Amino acid sequence: MEHAARRPALAHFLDAQRLAFGPLMFQAVRAARDMGVLGALDAAGQAGLLPGEVAERAGVSLYAARVLLEACLSAGVCEVEGWRFRLTRAGRLVLRDEMTRVNMDFVHHVCFRGAFELERSLREGRPAGLATLGPWSTVYEGLSRLDPEVQRAWFAFDHFYSDAVFAEALSVLLARRPTRVLDVGGNTGRFATACARRDPGVEVTILDHPGQLALAAREAEAAGVGPRVKGAPIELLDHRLPFPTGFDVVWMSQLLDCFPERDVVGLLRRGGAALKPGGRLYVSEPCWDRQPNEVGRYCLHATSLYFTAIANGTSRMYHSEDLAGCIAAAGMVLEEDRPLGSTHTLFVCRPG
Amino acid sequence: MEHAARRPALAHFLDAQRLAFGPLMFQAVRAARDMGVLGALDAAGQAGLLPGEVAERAGVSLYAARVLLEACLSAGVCEVEGWRFRLTRAGRLVLRDEMTRVNMDFVHHVCFRGAFELERSLREGRPAGLATLGPWSTVYEGLSRLDPEVQRAWFAFDHFYSDAVFAEALSVLLARRPTRVLDVGGNTGRFATACARRDPGVEVTILDHPGQLALAAREAEAAGVGPRVKGAPIELLDHRLPFPTGFDVVWMSQLLDCFPERDVVGLLRRGGAALKPGGRLYVSEPCWDRQPNEVGRYCLHATSLYFTAIANGTSRMYHSEDLAGCIAAAGMVLEEDRPLGSTHTLFVCRPG
Repeated sequence: MEHAARRPALAHFLDAQRLAFGPLMFQAVRAARDMGVLGALDAAGQAGLLPGEVAERAGVSLYAARVLLEACLSAGVCEVEGWRFRLTRAGRLVLRDEMTRVNMDFVHHVCFRGAFELERSLREGRPAGLATLGPWSTVYEGLSRLDPEVQRAWFAFDHFYSDAVFAEALSVLLARRPTRVLDVGGNTGRFATACARRDPGVEVTILDHPGQLALAAREAEAAGVGPRVKGAPIELLDHRLPFPTGFDVVWMSQLLDCFPERDVVGLLRRGGAALKPGGRLYVSEPCWDRQPNEVGRYCLHATSLYFTAIANGTSRMYHSEDLAGCIAAAGMVLEEDRPLGSTHTLFVCRPG
Repeated sequence: MEHAARRPALAHFLDAQRLAFGPLMFQAVRAARDMGVLGALDAAGQAGLLPGEVAERAGVSLYAARVLLEACLSAGVCEVEGWRFRLTRAGRLVLRDEMTRVNMDFVHHVCFRGAFELERSLREGRPAGLATLGPWSTVYEGLSRLDPEVQRAWFAFDHFYSDAVFAEALSVLLARRPTRVLDVGGNTGRFATACARRDPGVEVTILDHPGQLALAAREAEAAGVGPRVKGAPIELLDHRLPFPTGFDVVWMSQLLDCFPERDVVGLLRRGGAALKPGGRLYVSEPCWDRQPNEVGRYCLHATSLYFTAIANGTSRMYHSEDLAGCIAAAGMVLEEDRPLGSTHTLFVCRPG
């Protein structure tokens, strides 16, 4: 968006300091949001507020108001004129935009403490920051036992990005008139339930950790499709264990980014073997090279760091060429890849 | 530098996500610097490197190289063309600029873990993040007992900003031909030693915590001015305790930003009382409204957050009007304020 070569030297210095102080500024902007400072500014509109007025309306100390307003000024979240502070457009996004809120809560509750161990995670090939959340070797083992605040932030982040494309994906999948669908890594069952609700002739089997299957069963039950949503517990990473077979559709939504490439290949191979003749395997992933703009790419590259330091230490958000390579390595043929919403790519594969 | 009103909506979204993922991107860029990824790119110059070449030259896994290169791409630290990654200007600053390095090390070692408690610190009026470094009520109590890596980062940051203006400040102070100088909060004695070395007719007394005085005495000893650099231990915050008296010059360098305004007033009042007739009190501070550009202001606003979450929970980097108000409240007359280097302001005060 901004062309580096034409920017003045000072702008590069500012970029470097924004990186260097990013963790402190993150916490200041988040605190300003959660302590009512940004809300007070928003309500005051273009007239703006003096620090003392912000303190009074947000119910914080004058010191807190000043520290936060001054940090938010440099962070670009507010602006000042004659000591009256006003919210900027970026500030309104921090306060009101759902994606920005979900990202910030996820980074604070799930990632912040463990991010300190990013370098160690990379050196040791394990999520060294996960110990800040619980005594597990991957975050998936602990998902159902996370602290409530952490769990809420985790699921809000996960659902925000995956659920948006379910309706469109279902239109593509159900056009094949499948009767048996295998949802690999079905998580809390949102897709399976949506699928069963939309087509009463479909039965969905979810493959996942037993802890996740219990959550998924509750979701399906509550939606009245319990009898057509089944769970099959499996260790996804033991590639000697075959998946159940005889499916028209195998569905993998934001699953493969949770695994390193050698496991991606193993999962695709087992997914292909689960298909009936004529069946198709569908992979839905947000690929960083297929984003409509730099914002989407930025979020994905940052999310990879969560995988490194917190989730599993070995996976990342992939480039479409990475996935195409894995599909070929699994002996599958990539029939088509098409955009799903503005953020995801749907890879349609058949056994080779 | 960039005018908010004219920027496209997408740029504001990107700003908001840069804030939201700032802590993760910070750790990625720091790891890329410390694991040799940025160094490998720098050495390759405009030709750039493939991820596999980076992994080999930096001695890291291919996974680590990819995760870091992709994050650095979105962070603006490198750019890519046909899978060949090259360092950008911001990347060269991260790798080679001393200020950026000092800031990043300070944020990582001293601030990162405790920054998680910024909101709590603001709500409770105490540095709730300091527990990540040691069991003290302010960082000053623990300075001589910090972990070596943390201590190194703390002093490098402190000295980088304060030492640069010592020579110029000494020219101003010594022009008064003082014989007795009081250095309030003299820290590791760098200023006191420089002052004694530059003018053999001057004796400097350092007021500080006993732990700091021991370090300062060693510094003066090593420079051969031990006999003319004395230490006087004092609890700076007990405003009933007068300072020693009879000084031509009282010097406060980056001292006042370590205290809330009510203590700033108390310190200025006691400093004024320590002067001989005709003496002057000099305050050197980097004020956020007196910076030559947005970079300096940004660093100061971020540094305030360190004071909140780690150092003492009550102080911040001041605006020149804040300090002028404290000087008046202490019954002193602000005779002159003048720039010191490009970053600091020297306030020259006499008793009213």
